[in-house]
Formats: sequence, C-alpha cells, structure tokens
Amino acid sequence: MEKLRELTKNSVLGNPTRLGIMLYLLPREKALFRDILGVLEITPGNLDSHLKALERAGYVRIYKVFADRPRTAVRITEKGAEETGRYLRMLRSILNGI
Amino acid sequence: MEKLRELTKNSVLGNPTRLGIMLYLLPREKALFRDILGVLEITPGNLDSHLKALERAGYVRIYKVFADRPRTAVRITEKGAEETGRYLRMLRSILNGI
Repeated sequence: MEKLRELTKNSVLGNPTRLGIMLYLLPREKALFRDILGVLEITPGNLDSHLKALERAGYVRIYKVFADRPRTAVRITEKGAEETGRYLRMLRSILNGI
Repeated sequence: MEKLRELTKNSVLGNPTRLGIMLYLLPREKALFRDILGVLEITPGNLDSHLKALERAGYVRIYKVFADRPRTAVRITEKGAEETGRYLRMLRSILNGI
C-alpha cells in the first residue's frame, strides 16, 4: 500500500515519456537525440522539453558531438541511473504485489 | 524497443496518480473516495480531478453510497480492468527486458 503512494512521489520519472528516455539510456549510458526520437515517436520539441526537465533534475547531461555534423547527444548521470534503478525496483515491487 | 514507445501511448494510465488509483481498485473492484485519499496521500481536489478523468475515459464509475452519511464511491469498469491489465503486462514486459 505504501508502494502505491511512492508512485505519485517521483515527479520526474512519473512522466512516462521521461521514464521511457531513462529506460533507453540506462543500458547504453548515452544516445543521440535523433535515436531517442526514433524510438519514442514523439515530436522534437516534446523530446527537447523532457530532456531539459531531466537535465534540471540532474538525471542526464545534454552535450554536442561532432560526427558528420554537430549533433545533440545525451548521457545518463550517476544520479539518473540510481534514481531510475530505484524507480524500477518500486514498480517491480508493485507489480509483484498484484 | 516498441515497448518503450507503448509507454507514451496510454495517456490515461501514463499519469502515476491515475495508475495508482486503478491499482488500488483492481483487486477490490470498488472503494470509497476517502479510502483512496488515505492511500495515495494527495489532496481531495487532486483525487477528484483524476477520478473525473478516469470516468471520462470509461475506466471507473463514480457514485454515491449512503452509510452513516452520503459518501462518494468509485467502481472499476470492465474496460478499466482490461486496460489496467494491459498496461501492467506492458510494464512487466519492459521490466523483464531490462
């Protein structure tokens, strides 16, 4: 029962798009903006605003890489990986309790 | 990978408070407004607006019961139970893939 309460407590990962971004980054550590865009099928403006929210929370770092041309990339932070892991354990615990 | 995309598709259950309400109702079928309030620790206004969103989506029915005095109660609908089950299977599948 306390677990259900925890669902409403992480306002960063409570958003499913932000959770999706973190779940994509978790095993990869970093990704290009355009790759995340292809996976989640959201608009660039929408992805941009969620990435900025994740950066403000200290969960990711946004930077530029220069391949064929400058591209936006995202790297998960230690805090981001920890908090995502914690959130996943909470979700698992809720699912196992049902 | 397609599973991550599904995360962003259910705009009703993508909200963690609404997911919490449905997870509370799923094994019980019905509950009093004040009981859900005690479990989720949100404000009455907040719960009211999420319940109305769930009712608009056809996931719950809000009604009145007369015990010691009139109370608001909520019952999960067949559609609500089905959609919550589907969402849980999607979440499980994502968690198992990590």
